[in-house]
Amino acid sequence: MMKYENQDDGDAGLHESQDEMESLPLDEPSVVSGGATPTPGREPTGRTTFYTYLITMRTNIQGFGGSEFIVRRRFRDVVALSERLSETHRGFFVPVRPDKSVVESQMMQSEQFVEQRRAQVEKYLNKLAAHPVIRRSEELRAFLITRGRVLQLPKSVDVSPKQPSVVAAEGRTGGDLMRMFKELRQSVVNDWGRVKPLVVEEDKEFLERKEWLLEFEQQLSNLSQQAEALVKAQQDIGETMGELGLAFVKLTKFETDEAVFNSQRVRAADMKNVATAAVKSGRLYRELNSQTVKHLDKLHDYLGVMLAANTAFSDRSSALLTVQTLSTELTSLKSRIEKLEAASSKIFGGDRSRMRKIEELKETVRLTEDAKSSAVREYEGIKEHNRSELERLDKERHDDFMCMLRAFVLNQAGYAEKMANVWEKLTEETGEYAREGKSVNF
Amino acid sequence: MMKYENQDDGDAGLHESQDEMESLPLDEPSVVSGGATPTPGREPTGRTTFYTYLITMRTNIQGFGGSEFIVRRRFRDVVALSERLSETHRGFFVPVRPDKSVVESQMMQSEQFVEQRRAQVEKYLNKLAAHPVIRRSEELRAFLITRGRVLQLPKSVDVSPKQPSVVAAEGRTGGDLMRMFKELRQSVVNDWGRVKPLVVEEDKEFLERKEWLLEFEQQLSNLSQQAEALVKAQQDIGETMGELGLAFVKLTKFETDEAVFNSQRVRAADMKNVATAAVKSGRLYRELNSQTVKHLDKLHDYLGVMLAANTAFSDRSSALLTVQTLSTELTSLKSRIEKLEAASSKIFGGDRSRMRKIEELKETVRLTEDAKSSAVREYEGIKEHNRSELERLDKERHDDFMCMLRAFVLNQAGYAEKMANVWEKLTEETGEYAREGKSVNF
Repeated sequence: MMKYENQDDGDAGLHESQDEMESLPLDEPSVVSGGATPTPGREPTGRTTFYTYLITMRTNIQGFGGSEFIVRRRFRDVVALSERLSETHRGFFVPVRPDKSVVESQMMQSEQFVEQRRAQVEKYLNKLAAHPVIRRSEELRAFLITRGRVLQLPKSVDVSPKQPSVVAAEGRTGGDLMRMFKELRQSVVNDWGRVKPLVVEEDKEFLERKEWLLEFEQQLSNLSQQAEALVKAQQDIGETMGELGLAFVKLTKFETDEAVFNSQRVRAADMKNVATAAVKSGRLYRELNSQTVKHLDKLHDYLGVMLAANTAFSDRSSALLTVQTLSTELTSLKSRIEKLEAASSKIFGGDRSRMRKIEELKETVRLTEDAKSSAVREYEGIKEHNRSELERLDKERHDDFMCMLRAFVLNQAGYAEKMANVWEKLTEETGEYAREGKSVNF
Repeated sequence: MMKYENQDDGDAGLHESQDEMESLPLDEPSVVSGGATPTPGREPTGRTTFYTYLITMRTNIQGFGGSEFIVRRRFRDVVALSERLSETHRGFFVPVRPDKSVVESQMMQSEQFVEQRRAQVEKYLNKLAAHPVIRRSEELRAFLITRGRVLQLPKSVDVSPKQPSVVAAEGRTGGDLMRMFKELRQSVVNDWGRVKPLVVEEDKEFLERKEWLLEFEQQLSNLSQQAEALVKAQQDIGETMGELGLAFVKLTKFETDEAVFNSQRVRAADMKNVATAAVKSGRLYRELNSQTVKHLDKLHDYLGVMLAANTAFSDRSSALLTVQTLSTELTSLKSRIEKLEAASSKIFGGDRSRMRKIEELKETVRLTEDAKSSAVREYEGIKEHNRSELERLDKERHDDFMCMLRAFVLNQAGYAEKMANVWEKLTEETGEYAREGKSVNF
């Protein structure tokens, strides 16, 4: 729950009265992005205003050292958290963060924009809190419990080996850039298929799953388009039914004003009942629709999950590319050593400079091999994350879909029943309809 | 009932087997424009094709000399009938005939066009047959019972005095044209209000009714626009619900094909039930809509009645204008006679040529007075027709509207109930929904 406040951002205090409790499964931290603050403040950088959001978190996870925390965070903190999580949780389906809207600056004034962003942030944090691994991460913990406005996410938590050894092997000569070029070359070679890379993705099951997910994404996209069309149609019918009702109301008023006989007044009253029923029915359609929007929104969530999955698969590909690049490099280093040794063996007593070069190269081989092992571990880790995430997705997807369908069906049934009641009540109430035996055959 | 036939138009015989009986109130001729013939024939005039419609009429009106008649008529016969009725039934709300579509020649080939016209003709004839005066008219009788293809509507029936005396009074010097100019002048004088016409519309009740009808027409027009919007929205929701169902069907198929565990198959089956329900619900919406179209079509009928009423009021205005013109003319004639007599009285023994002129003018006055009485009778007749028609409209409008509303309400109630059943049955059938205790709170 979030509410707007008119207090200064400097006071990032608690506001106990305004938060409502939510019961969530107890083994998850329940994050409630509560008590929103569109509190314009002035930053040292001179940018005029920014907004902070009051976030309330409840958890029974032991590591948090408490069960309820309330902090203030800006949207840029959310962006930073999301970036850190992407770095430290390669291979996981890291929930996609809300867009940094391009119209932000123009919209900043608008309460609507702030409320929209608040809702997005709340949804995003709850997705993180629902993730079995991320919810226990140091990054999320730091985000949720660190007091104060300036938030420094822990650097030390980054234990992913992400080519530290490669950087070491390359020394200080723009190693990262060099590696990037090498990986790019390797990637081009792979793509053109001229040289078979030394390491290839051979996990058939994974490749099948990936293929399956691609197709599932298309199904989802189709379904979500249809769902949007339904939402639009339901909105339209709600509005037109309401307007038809109002047209009947006008006609009724006109007829009543002009009524001479009592029977005319009775009939005008009957017509008014129809008008009221149409207006009610229109309202029910609009209510139904706002519920439908909620239920079918799960489809959009899953399109987001597909995006996260694609990122996780990209992590895997790029980790594999690193392994491939290091393998190619090792092969090339070893072949250079062989050539130097062969050349050197022809010279009796050896060639001092060649011998030194060979030693240097062997040292580079050792470092590169370390880097490669590290890269292989990283790759294997990502593979394992991919696997566990796919398994989790399989299960959750089924539950979520059944849940969504259940809600959708109950909602349709409930409102259809309500609408039937509106009209049926009318047929009972309006004696005119029941008694008049006139043929409907016109 | 009408059916298409592939027989030559020359044989305008009976086709007993193809007509279905309709029960209609017995004091009206029941016209069934049955057994349509889009039978292309060649006319002497060289126009390539035309279509005739087989019309079956049942009546218990004595004047018809029978109870069932079957004839073939072309659309131009309908046009001719409509023109004759407008002439002979001035002041009545003569039902408006179907449009002579401009795209006729291009469309002539299309079965759709012929069927549309057939339906319009049937509807039109039934409106004529439902009119308390027109249904007993010689014109309708001749149209419905005269055998053979060439239809000559009776000329002798035209007993309306429509300025025959005026024509006589004007002699043979382009009298009609003269009268038209005179009426036009009179009309301009009336409009500019410079000279108060000798006869004015003083029937306050009529003027109020006319005013009322104008406002009612606006109400109708508003209502009919909203009704069309509802029809469009209902069609849209029917189609999108159907398409959403199909998207679920596809997803179900995809899930079933990929299902590994039995539980997955059960869930896919559950999803299929939802898909089926959505498809069914879509179909119900479309059925509901085709019924709604029928019910709200009454609004369009009444817009047609408004048109007929306007024509009837114009008949009255133009009849009044004729009376006014003739009155002005009489005044002018009498003033000329007075002047001539005054001039002539100054001459002893009288002026032979002046005396002859006076005699001629007096004869013209007599003829014009006859014409005026005739025009007044015509005007009074039209007034009476207007009055009785307004009274009839008042009663029928209420009945028809209540009937329409009743049908509309019953239809909405019925389909809302059916849709509720579709979804509720699903919630009962699908154990998954009932049993699974998972929160719907996503």
